[in-house]
Amino acid sequence: MKAVVFDEELKLVDNYKKPVPQKGEALVKVTLAGICNTDYEITKGYMGYKGILGHEAVGIVEEINDEDKSLLGKRVVAEISYGCKEPGCPYCAQKLYRHCPERHTLGIWRKDGVFAEYFTMPLETLFEVPDNVTDEQAVFVEPLAAACEITEQLHIKPFEKVIVLGDGKLGLITALTLNAQNINVTLVGKHQNKLDIAKAQGVDVMLLQDLKVEKIYDVVVEATGSISGFETALALTKPRGTLVLKSTVAASKEFNLAPIVIDEITVLGSRCGQFGGALRLLKSEKVDFSPLISATYNVDNAIEAFEKNKEKETLKVLIKF
Amino acid sequence: MKAVVFDEELKLVDNYKKPVPQKGEALVKVTLAGICNTDYEITKGYMGYKGILGHEAVGIVEEINDEDKSLLGKRVVAEISYGCKEPGCPYCAQKLYRHCPERHTLGIWRKDGVFAEYFTMPLETLFEVPDNVTDEQAVFVEPLAAACEITEQLHIKPFEKVIVLGDGKLGLITALTLNAQNINVTLVGKHQNKLDIAKAQGVDVMLLQDLKVEKIYDVVVEATGSISGFETALALTKPRGTLVLKSTVAASKEFNLAPIVIDEITVLGSRCGQFGGALRLLKSEKVDFSPLISATYNVDNAIEAFEKNKEKETLKVLIKF
Repeated sequence: MKAVVFDEELKLVDNYKKPVPQKGEALVKVTLAGICNTDYEITKGYMGYKGILGHEAVGIVEEINDEDKSLLGKRVVAEISYGCKEPGCPYCAQKLYRHCPERHTLGIWRKDGVFAEYFTMPLETLFEVPDNVTDEQAVFVEPLAAACEITEQLHIKPFEKVIVLGDGKLGLITALTLNAQNINVTLVGKHQNKLDIAKAQGVDVMLLQDLKVEKIYDVVVEATGSISGFETALALTKPRGTLVLKSTVAASKEFNLAPIVIDEITVLGSRCGQFGGALRLLKSEKVDFSPLISATYNVDNAIEAFEKNKEKETLKVLIKF
Repeated sequence: MKAVVFDEELKLVDNYKKPVPQKGEALVKVTLAGICNTDYEITKGYMGYKGILGHEAVGIVEEINDEDKSLLGKRVVAEISYGCKEPGCPYCAQKLYRHCPERHTLGIWRKDGVFAEYFTMPLETLFEVPDNVTDEQAVFVEPLAAACEITEQLHIKPFEKVIVLGDGKLGLITALTLNAQNINVTLVGKHQNKLDIAKAQGVDVMLLQDLKVEKIYDVVVEATGSISGFETALALTKPRGTLVLKSTVAASKEFNLAPIVIDEITVLGSRCGQFGGALRLLKSEKVDFSPLISATYNVDNAIEAFEKNKEKETLKVLIKF
């Protein structure tokens, strides 16, 4: 089968071995997939991963190796990690497969990803896509779930002021998702055209140059992916407020931890989320991610798609199968 | 009056002007004071502070400029910050004077400290010391309150595993205080003699060299004051666990923030605390800080006391007036 593989270099392979679903797994035929910045980071060495890339996709269940065939033929999305499911694993018991120490993660850690004609995943990671949700919306479910993760971890009260820093994919999706949950959110970025996407859906937006840096925000979401963004975030968080750290920055830089202590700030690392709530938001049509699609490529042009993804103005690049 | 002053250099002054209590303030005659590492950091430039040093003291109220004279002649300790008390200040309204943007902090920020024969503070910051609590115990109330702050900020459940890194004053006081609250705490450090102080009061202790670094702790308290301590703390915190950051390290070093995101760790900055709960612990005699007293100097030898405080083996140095 065709597959987009990273193994020291990024390549499109024609004859990758089609996976065989193990007991409890389904074989999914991919229809549409999305490139995430993590994919790009991996091509620069992040996680030391080698194999098929990709963890954002929609597909059709073509085969199931299990007695429960209820998902056969259904349009599905897959949570990106599965765990050991051993009795006594507290993470698996809570369906926090993404924190199981023995986890496998699509296209990131010990598991071939979704940039291929087929992938396999355990049934418990698969969710049927509601009929009214198009593939183009459903392919955003993973970053949407990651945005929903913030409200899984943190109780944001209706009167609290939330600011999201960064108008890239991550920042836009986060702001749209928080706004769809009736949270008082402002998105700050450097690009008026990107901010306008959020504004059109009711999010308050502001250019970075117009932002007054003062400690008045209850919750600050760092989605710039840069340490200077982290420092600005810290300077915006009010005493005893929360700085949500969303970017997995591979780079590092010196900085002083004292402000975290002096203002008793909570720095909350936040990563992937569960798909249930995310699909509910998509079904309700309270968010529309189509303005974020910069380009769609056929899998035969996947390398070109990765090139497009690198461009500064690009938001989401999709790969069609 | 005699006062220990920092103004580019540390000096003992004989003729510092005795402070006059303003409306709502008391004049306190100091009997015993304690040197904190923050005092030492200030002499290296921390906070850019100039003036009388010190924020840990016990004293007797000698004069009150207020109708309410109830504390006159009483033995008291003083919370270290007072706020603006303006209507509408959310921090002052919650008695979180230590987070009021217009705060003054004894010996640290815009307010002469307690290493002097007298200091003044607003009445609402003063707490009477229970009769059964000696000056030598009461002088620890500020760092004890800072340790109590952890359980003010964070709900630590009885079955959770807590580890404190660092067997200096901060780590010892933190471990003793958590232990006195029936929390399952282990103190880790490099010095058997210091660990033994905690062990004698029922704390589980471990030499750093015997510590297996694995992500199994629900709560990790960083009390080493070093970035390498922070990195170890991160490596001990289980996914979705909490790293309590207690040290105000003035130094900085590069490090990668990605583990905070990947394991969704909460980094909780934690500073000073309120005195009510701390005094209750002292009154109940559930903690004994006397083994932490390394030396007591008369104020006339205060410079010597600061020298003693710098020595590696030293724990708490007191100054008698």
